Amino acid sequence: MIPTARTLLISCPDRRGIVAAVSQCVLEAGGNIIRSDQHTTDPIGGIFFMRLEFLYMDAPADDSDFTRRFAPVAERFAMDWRLVRTGEPKRMALFVSRLGHCFVDVLWRWHSGELPVKIPLVVSNHPDLEPVAAQYGLPYHYLPIDKTNHLEREAQILDLLEGEADFVVLARYMRVLSPSFVERYSGRIINIHHSFLPAFVGASPYERACERGVKVIGATAHYVTEELDAGPIIEQDVVRVNHRDQVADLKLKGRDIERVVLARAVKWHVEDRVLIYGNRTVVFI
Amino acid sequence: MIPTARTLLISCPDRRGIVAAVSQCVLEAGGNIIRSDQHTTDPIGGIFFMRLEFLYMDAPADDSDFTRRFAPVAERFAMDWRLVRTGEPKRMALFVSRLGHCFVDVLWRWHSGELPVKIPLVVSNHPDLEPVAAQYGLPYHYLPIDKTNHLEREAQILDLLEGEADFVVLARYMRVLSPSFVERYSGRIINIHHSFLPAFVGASPYERACERGVKVIGATAHYVTEELDAGPIIEQDVVRVNHRDQVADLKLKGRDIERVVLARAVKWHVEDRVLIYGNRTVVFI
Amino acid sequence: MIPTARTLLISCPDRRGIVAAVSQCVLEAGGNIIRSDQHTTDPIGGIFFMRLEFLYMDAPADDSDFTRRFAPVAERFAMDWRLVRTGEPKRMALFVSRLGHCFVDVLWRWHSGELPVKIPLVVSNHPDLEPVAAQYGLPYHYLPIDKTNHLEREAQILDLLEGEADFVVLARYMRVLSPSFVERYSGRIINIHHSFLPAFVGASPYERACERGVKVIGATAHYVTEELDAGPIIEQDVVRVNHRDQVADLKLKGRDIERVVLARAVKWHVEDRVLIYGNRTVVFI
Amino acid sequence: MIPTARTLLISCPDRRGIVAAVSQCVLEAGGNIIRSDQHTTDPIGGIFFMRLEFLYMDAPADDSDFTRRFAPVAERFAMDWRLVRTGEPKRMALFVSRLGHCFVDVLWRWHSGELPVKIPLVVSNHPDLEPVAAQYGLPYHYLPIDKTNHLEREAQILDLLEGEADFVVLARYMRVLSPSFVERYSGRIINIHHSFLPAFVGASPYERACERGVKVIGATAHYVTEELDAGPIIEQDVVRVNHRDQVADLKLKGRDIERVVLARAVKWHVEDRVLIYGNRTVVFI
Repeated sequence: MIPTARTLLISCPDRRGIVAAVSQCVLEAGGNIIRSDQHTTDPIGGIFFMRLEFLYMDAPADDSDFTRRFAPVAERFAMDWRLVRTGEPKRMALFVSRLGHCFVDVLWRWHSGELPVKIPLVVSNHPDLEPVAAQYGLPYHYLPIDKTNHLEREAQILDLLEGEADFVVLARYMRVLSPSFVERYSGRIINIHHSFLPAFVGASPYERACERGVKVIGATAHYVTEELDAGPIIEQDVVRVNHRDQVADLKLKGRDIERVVLARAVKWHVEDRVLIYGNRTVVFI
Repeated sequence: MIPTARTLLISCPDRRGIVAAVSQCVLEAGGNIIRSDQHTTDPIGGIFFMRLEFLYMDAPADDSDFTRRFAPVAERFAMDWRLVRTGEPKRMALFVSRLGHCFVDVLWRWHSGELPVKIPLVVSNHPDLEPVAAQYGLPYHYLPIDKTNHLEREAQILDLLEGEADFVVLARYMRVLSPSFVERYSGRIINIHHSFLPAFVGASPYERACERGVKVIGATAHYVTEELDAGPIIEQDVVRVNHRDQVADLKLKGRDIERVVLARAVKWHVEDRVLIYGNRTVVFI
Repeated sequence: MIPTARTLLISCPDRRGIVAAVSQCVLEAGGNIIRSDQHTTDPIGGIFFMRLEFLYMDAPADDSDFTRRFAPVAERFAMDWRLVRTGEPKRMALFVSRLGHCFVDVLWRWHSGELPVKIPLVVSNHPDLEPVAAQYGLPYHYLPIDKTNHLEREAQILDLLEGEADFVVLARYMRVLSPSFVERYSGRIINIHHSFLPAFVGASPYERACERGVKVIGATAHYVTEELDAGPIIEQDVVRVNHRDQVADLKLKGRDIERVVLARAVKWHVEDRVLIYGNRTVVFI
Repeated sequence: MIPTARTLLISCPDRRGIVAAVSQCVLEAGGNIIRSDQHTTDPIGGIFFMRLEFLYMDAPADDSDFTRRFAPVAERFAMDWRLVRTGEPKRMALFVSRLGHCFVDVLWRWHSGELPVKIPLVVSNHPDLEPVAAQYGLPYHYLPIDKTNHLEREAQILDLLEGEADFVVLARYMRVLSPSFVERYSGRIINIHHSFLPAFVGASPYERACERGVKVIGATAHYVTEELDAGPIIEQDVVRVNHRDQVADLKLKGRDIERVVLARAVKWHVEDRVLIYGNRTVVFI
């Protein structure tokens, strides 16, 4: 019998005995812990986070049995928790505009098996990238947006997503989402911003980086919140630039960083490695 | 009462129930786990490594009580284990030759409180760096070594270390230690090699890097084993170079990498974050 | 009139007066220098390298006039030199095997206008990547190679390249080329090797990196010479790994490095930024 | 006779013939160009920057002869220019407060010959680092500053610097200089700021980085201008952090970046590699 893997995610007020209670419970449910990460914001009065991968070793996976055993532990420690099937693909809706580098990169990683996701649909406010979606046989919903139809369009998009998508990736999608949309997919919308936030929040970061004469440029993948480019950061990286680099060069160099930063963030999200607390993330990698 | 911290280090054959047993034992001994890291080389039949920091919360630390409770667990799982007082300084013997950049850097970090070590003595085969040791009031043993007196000198050095040093740092010490010396301090001698091993094992790595025309150079901190520059790697890092860099430039750029790589390795060693298995390391950072 | 750009590449024994003579000649030919890079291996008795971009400002480009003026300068200083039309696409033959990540990446960069190349043909010893080539309408020559037909196949490939390709990119092509093939395209075959050379020359570098327990892995783009993985290095980069990374993880992390390192090397090659001397390169970026 | 080296720095409106005129002039003055870098902000109507190292080969250095020859060229092209003796130490005033890591690092680099500077004096608003200055026999001027005596103190400091210092390095000096002070040493005051500017301008950048949950932290060396942390950036670098890093950890990790970023900026400044234009720098490395 091939062992079946599960990932258990926990957050709760930190106090003594959590690890013992959780690990005992996993043991009794027939599980063998193969990886465990934990973090506490403060051992006295802080929040405790745990991510645990285990295998059901001897018997078929029985998540209802596990849940029955785990419920009292969870209650005792006032836990937020989730049990997920390790490696099970999540359904990712891709939002794009005109620039295709992040889109193509995500698609390629998905197609080559690097990202355990399903892609039920692509949404765009421009028709440009439809041929790319078509290459992979993906439905491409071209929904042009302007000031007059913004909320109506979002309602249409929400309809499309309903029951189809677990999370949303903004792969250089250049429209700001409304607060109600963000609220609906809270903690489940990943954006790639083309600067090392909090520098250059908002529009035209490469132009402003060039003007400021910075010697590094960066990219930031973050969860979208109501405030623009201010949500919890999942991943960042940078690349060196110099006085020779014009805006066009920054864009070119930036592309490679945007792609890998977004790819890492998406991978960690679908592997349930990212936990949000307040405006920060714990990333168990 | 200020809680007292302990670090528990474990390695054993991986099997089910280790985490539950260990965490239960810590709980019963009055400990609150504040950090825990684990790694398995293979969930089925592999080796399990664990590093756990806990606080004695309510009562004075009683390590003999802990040990009494833990002994049967350790026996049951055939564990190698150690309990250490978190943050307690280790005694570090520094070996140097002529080049002072790593030496000065380690001294400064020690002096500024960044490295929790004591430095009982400095050993050198050259007199050059004695003034630096003197600035900090450190005993400097100048023991010139040549082919005729090599083993005799090592015997003298071993006498100096006996009961005085917990581990040895070769801060650009340019003599190869004999197998018996290495054996005596197995897993407790850290060397900084000025290349990204396994490239450029042995003498003159910068000269050879320049000849080969590489575009990055690096530094490697590793535990010393009998085979030259082949021991378990603790840390590595690199820096970009280009066609303009002559050997002298590589040495200059390399210095900065050597210093930080060595400093990280020493810090992780004294904080008991590094576990050796075969010729590799697990580094819990 | 839009100014026409030219790139002038020079190497010669270093002596006084080269820059003055060259820049005077460009001036008299109606050129305005917009970028100039130079390097000398040694101001006394070394080799001098220069790369110069200029614009014909006032009159139509007249390269034969330039050549007539420049010939005596070149002779006087015993120069190797070339004048190329800046930005003119070079014809790149792509060689691939089974792994598609570098192939797809190069294609995407070409397609998006990032790489000024034409791709007359793709050669492979496996059929796997034919669909990818087909997506872009590129001829894909599937030529399976074994020990018995190696030289015959190479002869076929040389026929395909003749008059069609300016240079060859081995995008994870897993066959060693014969010395005569290498000789035929000397300084014009770029390979991407999946390690930071000179570490892990030859087969299975990720497996060997994992065994050695390194803390960084890398990729190296180099010109192919007769000796395996020993040719002039164009570009290298690395990424951090840790004890958790199995061989499969190294391969995944390595992919992203391989792609960008190869892309940079190809870009610099087609922009005539790379000059070879002995077994090293001068890269004017 | 050992050749004598000179560095020539030029900026002027870009137009045709500059390189030819300059290199011809160097040739006639008996110079052999050993390194030349140039940059234009725009080939049509932009600003042209040049840095040129040459050796007087045959005869003793005669800068007045060079100047006589060069003056008409400079006038013709409306050049700002400077001729400096390559490698001649500049006089650096060090300003420090309480934190010693940058101070110690700069001192060590100076002492080991890595930085071609003289250090006529150290200025501080705290007495803490006097012993470090004393180790190296450097005059340490302890001048406590508060709101009431700010301008008076600056006047004292300006007196100390007058005729003694060519430039000022703020090695974690935690007082804002007045506009008139900045004006007096315009383009000659280097500050190290402990963030990747323009993120976290002003006080407590590590605290704010921690709050924002960034995944990289950085350091920026820049010339001081009237506006706080807004002057021309010379160098920046970053280091990865994660959710485990508290403010204290960020400070520790940041130290290593601050030190190398400041050291590079100071080195490039004293080697006359940095040219300022508007609020940016051209750095010829």
